[in-house]
Order: sequence, then structure tokens, then C-alpha cells
Amino acid sequence: MKTYLELSKDELQQTLKILEIRYNELKSRNLALDMTRGKPSPAQLDLANDMPSLLDTDNLKSEDGSDCRNYGVPYGIMECRKLFGEILDVDPSLITVGNNSSLQLMYDTLSRSLIYGELGGEKPWAQIPNRKWICPVPGYDRHFLVTETLGFELIAVPLKEDGPDMDIVEKLVAEDPSILGMWAMPLYSNPDGYIYSEEVCKRLVSMKTAAPDFRIMWDNAYVVHHLYDDVSKQGKLPDILKLACEAGNPNRVYEFASTSKISFAGSGIACMAANEENVKRARKYLGVQAICPNKIVQLMHAKYLPNLDAVKNIMSKQAELLRPKFEMVLKILNDEFEGSGVAHWNEPLGGYFVSLFVLDGTAKETVRLAKECGVALTPAGATYPYGKDPNDSNIRIAPSFPSIKDIEVAVTVLAVCAKLSAVRKLLEA
Amino acid sequence: MKTYLELSKDELQQTLKILEIRYNELKSRNLALDMTRGKPSPAQLDLANDMPSLLDTDNLKSEDGSDCRNYGVPYGIMECRKLFGEILDVDPSLITVGNNSSLQLMYDTLSRSLIYGELGGEKPWAQIPNRKWICPVPGYDRHFLVTETLGFELIAVPLKEDGPDMDIVEKLVAEDPSILGMWAMPLYSNPDGYIYSEEVCKRLVSMKTAAPDFRIMWDNAYVVHHLYDDVSKQGKLPDILKLACEAGNPNRVYEFASTSKISFAGSGIACMAANEENVKRARKYLGVQAICPNKIVQLMHAKYLPNLDAVKNIMSKQAELLRPKFEMVLKILNDEFEGSGVAHWNEPLGGYFVSLFVLDGTAKETVRLAKECGVALTPAGATYPYGKDPNDSNIRIAPSFPSIKDIEVAVTVLAVCAKLSAVRKLLEA
Repeated sequence: MKTYLELSKDELQQTLKILEIRYNELKSRNLALDMTRGKPSPAQLDLANDMPSLLDTDNLKSEDGSDCRNYGVPYGIMECRKLFGEILDVDPSLITVGNNSSLQLMYDTLSRSLIYGELGGEKPWAQIPNRKWICPVPGYDRHFLVTETLGFELIAVPLKEDGPDMDIVEKLVAEDPSILGMWAMPLYSNPDGYIYSEEVCKRLVSMKTAAPDFRIMWDNAYVVHHLYDDVSKQGKLPDILKLACEAGNPNRVYEFASTSKISFAGSGIACMAANEENVKRARKYLGVQAICPNKIVQLMHAKYLPNLDAVKNIMSKQAELLRPKFEMVLKILNDEFEGSGVAHWNEPLGGYFVSLFVLDGTAKETVRLAKECGVALTPAGATYPYGKDPNDSNIRIAPSFPSIKDIEVAVTVLAVCAKLSAVRKLLEA
Repeated sequence: MKTYLELSKDELQQTLKILEIRYNELKSRNLALDMTRGKPSPAQLDLANDMPSLLDTDNLKSEDGSDCRNYGVPYGIMECRKLFGEILDVDPSLITVGNNSSLQLMYDTLSRSLIYGELGGEKPWAQIPNRKWICPVPGYDRHFLVTETLGFELIAVPLKEDGPDMDIVEKLVAEDPSILGMWAMPLYSNPDGYIYSEEVCKRLVSMKTAAPDFRIMWDNAYVVHHLYDDVSKQGKLPDILKLACEAGNPNRVYEFASTSKISFAGSGIACMAANEENVKRARKYLGVQAICPNKIVQLMHAKYLPNLDAVKNIMSKQAELLRPKFEMVLKILNDEFEGSGVAHWNEPLGGYFVSLFVLDGTAKETVRLAKECGVALTPAGATYPYGKDPNDSNIRIAPSFPSIKDIEVAVTVLAVCAKLSAVRKLLEA
């Protein structure tokens, strides 16, 4: 069987007709489906519904006797620091637990870099007007938006199956002292679900950087967010903070995680982990910024997630809800695109997305056609800095929120639209 | 009866002996009392103990149907925006509700001023190296620490009974374009419990400022924190945002409040209110900084505090617990210092502190002597920028946390130490 790329003009015309019939049939259904939202479904959230009632309202104290209702304990209660310590395999002394948003902690960390500078640096980053930031692509739009808003020029670097293209990264950071850092989503990257290899991790913390205060924002958002209980199907990362120490760059990495997709998406707890020196310096400022995080929320999480086993147990239940949705996405993609040669994708083992690459130059048109068909997709380009995918090829699929039935229909629409766009594009050529 | 200042050397010597006997007697008791902590007592916090259990865990949605467990609603659920709207007498459209800390919202607002600048300004404040900030004194140490940390030079301006000394403020801000703003704690100021007059409020929003983007951080921390239910004994402020509009300086004020001393001190909810243009601009950045605040915490507050009447009812119960403590402080101060002429203080109608002025040059010595006696007081000078009280005269008393019995003893110790220091000082002269 020939791929679309090998078809003659006549064969393409014939394929087009069939696809147009399918498209019109789908359009006539008056669908209204939304595949844009990378957020948990109500059924996933239901798992944690009892969390607030686990509090003993007669005794709202942490293990060490601190009154969680009152001021104090600025870096988070020890139960939660230990919990994230287990999750990240990091000593609790290096962990600071905040409020609900890890994105806020990342923004906040970079704000401090701008205002106060970083250890080893010469000046506050706000005084580096041409500051730049490396963004592995495709990547997380909200990461990119944070650094764009904070005045960094965003430099896209291809993300490969084992992590960012390190030959490019190493060359860039060695030459340009105004490149001050990079984003990393090392496990089940958003949107591809790629897992950084140990070698890439080592190169990231070892590479020579022209900026003496180069920083990696290590967003370990999906650290326990596996789709399969079978350990051989689970990604695993080395302890990046330890690797950075061993490489002689102990202050290079800030690591982040949260329970947003373990307990409640908008109402979990988030943490930052870093090397001793960075922790000490960050806390000096954190202690000025606020008196303390919400410790009642932390206490309720400590009851719900007393240890790593409890986390694993809940994540296994989360996976039970997510897995069939991912499998439906992949089944439709396989069925629809088989042999067509106009799309490829990774089959993720965890995380929240499937990343579809369609024929170059057809992603926007695919999203537009799908919209006309009543299926809302994440805007093409959203996974690239400034919303601009140079190849116009990547589309992010978010399967967590819709029902399996809706996913089946929506991904079928997506595939038909992608094939239609591809054939039309090929006919133009 | 003569004041200490009118006594002869012999009379002072005699007074000294009596005070030394009293001091030694108090010292022999081996006290261990702490008057430093401006935080609610456990009995106050107990009032809100049921708050988490008010959540209906089968229906964690806000009034408008938003799932409070999930992402979304970046500026706070409408119930809480309405609640703060009632509390501050501000339209809910102008209110943004965040997480637990109003101090964090203030720090965050000023961070944005540094990084992005303010409307009407010429450049981000980080680019104004000699930036300055007005601090009414005595004032709140954590305010001062925020602006000091953010690189402002702090300019102390005397706080009078009706607010900051406006003749001085107006002169300073008219002349120096590097003075970018000021702190204000307009109702029951920390520590004096002063209430800004309507005239002072009007002058603050009307005054000509050399900096086109001059801002007032209006910390309305004690807006409903009256000690007396009798309305004639309650302070009241005009709507500062409206006044600023009327004065033609609509963007001059950011207003803050929280439920820290209504529900749980460390685990309440906080808000920012501002004029429409400022709100719009702040939200542009807030939407980048985080996906949303913790809405489960907001929902639990909406259940506990459904309207202003519920707030008033709770604050009346809080006052029942606080009032006798304040009254004990004032009784001892009156008894001990009567006729001595070496101390004065305001009798606050609300807030969390009593501010004692002892003889110039004796505050530090008073605190030192009290410490030797087993009574920990807030360090003298803490209520001034850089911790330096030029007159060495002010001592902040925090009556909320200790028991009435402990307050009785601790304030007695404080008074004896203050009188002892005064007499010694007078004998030196």
C-alpha cells in the first residue's frame, strides 16, 4: 500500500473525495466537543473528595505540634516536605512546600532572579536587557508564556525522544552569556510524553555555560503520573540535584512538583526543591514575601497522602481512569493514519497529552477544519514559543477531560481533517 | 503630684530604690512570658474550627457551577469576591481573591511594579536605582521589610492620630520623583491603632506627586476588626478607591485585606482591590503567574462567611476574646504610669496592638530589662525602617496571644522596666 506521499494526482483526487464525504458526514452531526483542556476529569477529582473531611477539626496541628491554623512554619509542614521528599527522592531539608500552584513557584523563582539575581551571577537578571531562555519544543505553553512575559527572548530547541537536542543546547549556552536558563519537563514531557535519558540529564548539569548563573527549571510535573502499574512501563529519572552536585554545578537546578494531578488540580500543594545554597537564599526572600503558606491545606494533604505508597495507590486509580482514554486516542490514530505516511506520534507511558505531528504546513488548517466540524482543539502552534510552530505541524491532544466516547469521535474528526488537509496540500504541490 | 521629670535628684533616687525592689521581686519569679506575637490565640482560632467541615464534599462547586477542585477561575470565585466587596465597600468586579496571604499579594504587586512598571510611569521600577518609599512610623515591620528587600530606600514620616503627617508627605512627594509610593495602614494602624481621617485620605489621593506612577499600598488589614460592638466606638474609612477617582488619580491606590484574623491566621483568604485599569493590568500578569488560587479554601470561606453579617457576628465574638486583654494592658499602663509623665499611648478601638512610647532613649533598655525578667517583648525599633527608632522610644505590645493573667504580669514588668530605665536616664542627665 502506498503512502499519501507516493500517490499520483488521480489517486490523491480519489482519496480526497472519500475524505470529503467522511468530513461532511461528521460535520452534519453538529458536534460540540472540546479536546483542549489538559485538566483532570470529574471522576479523577472524585477520588480525592473526602480529603477535606480527613481533617480532625478538634486537632489541627502538624506532627511537630505547630498550629496549622495560625501563622508560622514558612517553608511548609514537615509531613508535606517529607512526602515530596519521597516523591522526588530528595532530602526534605531541601524542599519548600508552598500553596497550590507549582507554576506560581516557578514564576516566583524567576521573579527573584530578575530582581535579586542568582548565586554566582554578576547582576540581577532584570539588568540583562537581551536575556534569553531555551525552550525545548514542542513544550508547555504556560512555561513559555512565563519567560516571555518576564522579558526573555525564547529560543526553541528541538525536543527528541530522549530529551532536548543536546548538541544544539551545549553549543548555544557555551557561546551566549545572555542565555540564562532553560525549561525542562523531563518525565512525560508536555505534550510528547518523552522521557529524558540519563545521558541527557548528565549533559544538562555538566555542560559549560557562558552565563555563570545559568539555571534549569526542572518541572517534574508528572513524576508519579504513570499510565501503567507495570514498573517496566514506567519512566524514571535520576536525582537531578545530586547529578548537578556531582558535576560541580550544584546550584544549576530548581526542581518543582505538585499534587495538582494527584489530589485536586486547582487546590493541591506545590513544592520547590533545590541545592542547599539555593534553598537558603530562596528562603531568605520567601520569608519576606509571605508569613506562611496555607497549612490547613497541607495538613489535609498529609492525611490523604501520608506516604509514597498512598500516592502510588491513588495514581494507580488515576491511571485506571486515564489509560482507556489514551488507548482510545492511540487506537483511532493508528486506525486512521495507518499507512498514510502523513502523521506520527509518540505513545506516552504517562503524563497528560498525546502529541500529533501532521504533514508540515497543515496543522493550522487541520485545527480550523476540526473547529468547523464542532471539535475544539488546542490552537496549532501553542506548543511553540510565541505560538508559532515553524513547521505548522504539531497538534496537542488532551484526552483527560472528555469521555471515551467523545474522544473516539473527536480524534476521528481530527484524523479525517488532518488527512484532508494533507491531501489538499499534496494536490497543491 | 510631680512627674518624674519634675523630681529632684533625691526624689529620683528614692523612686529608683522602690523600682529596683519591685524589679528584683518580679525577676525572682522566674517568669517566661512572650508578648511579641501579633497572632490570634487558640481560643480565637477555635471559633472557625468547623469551617473545613462546612464543605459539602459531594458538591464542591461554586455558585456559578465552577468545579472548585479543578483548574480555572483565576481571580477567585464570585462568592468570595462579593464577600470582600461587602467588607471593603468596593464593587466585586474590582476585587481579585488569591491564596492565604495579603502580604504575598503586596509583595507580588510591588514585584510587578519593579519588573513591568506601573501605568503612567516611564519605566519598570527596577530601572530606578535610587527608588524610595515612604513609611509612616511607627508602622508594620513586615511592610518595611518588603520594600527594603525590594531595594527601596525607606523614608520615615511621623504617623499622627489622624494619619501620616501630610505636610511632610506632600512636600516629599512633590519634590522627589524617585519616591514611588508609600505604605498605609489606615484603620487601627499597626501598632498605634490610629485611624486616618477623611481629610488625610483626601490629601493622600489628591496630592501632586513628582513620580507620575506614585502608588499607595492601602493595607486595610483591620477593616472589620473592632474591639467594640457599639458603632460609635468603631473606626470607619471612606472608600479610598472612589476618592482617588474623584481626585483624578484613579490608579494611585492598591487596597488589600484578608480573613487572616477573621477565620484562620495562616490559612485564610486574601484579596486585592484596585481601580479598573489597575485591575485589568494586574490580571494580565496574574493569569501568567498561576492558573488559579486554591478555590476549595475559597469555597470553605464562602460557606463560613456567606455575607457581611456573618463576618460581623464572628468579629463580635473575636472582640469578646480580645477586648479584656486590651483592657488589661490599658489598665496596667494607666495604673503604673499615672502621673509619671514618662510614657504615653493610644487607646485603640481595634486592631491587634497597643503602642507604648516611653521616655526618649529608654526603649531598648526597657526591652533588655524585661528580657532579664523573663518577659520577651518585640525588639525596640522594630516599628521603624531598618529597625531603628531615632528616639529609641516606641515599644509594641501584642496582647492577642497570651492569657489575661500573663498580660497582667508581663505589662507590669514592662512598666516597671520602663520607669526604672526612665529614672536612671534622668539621674544621668
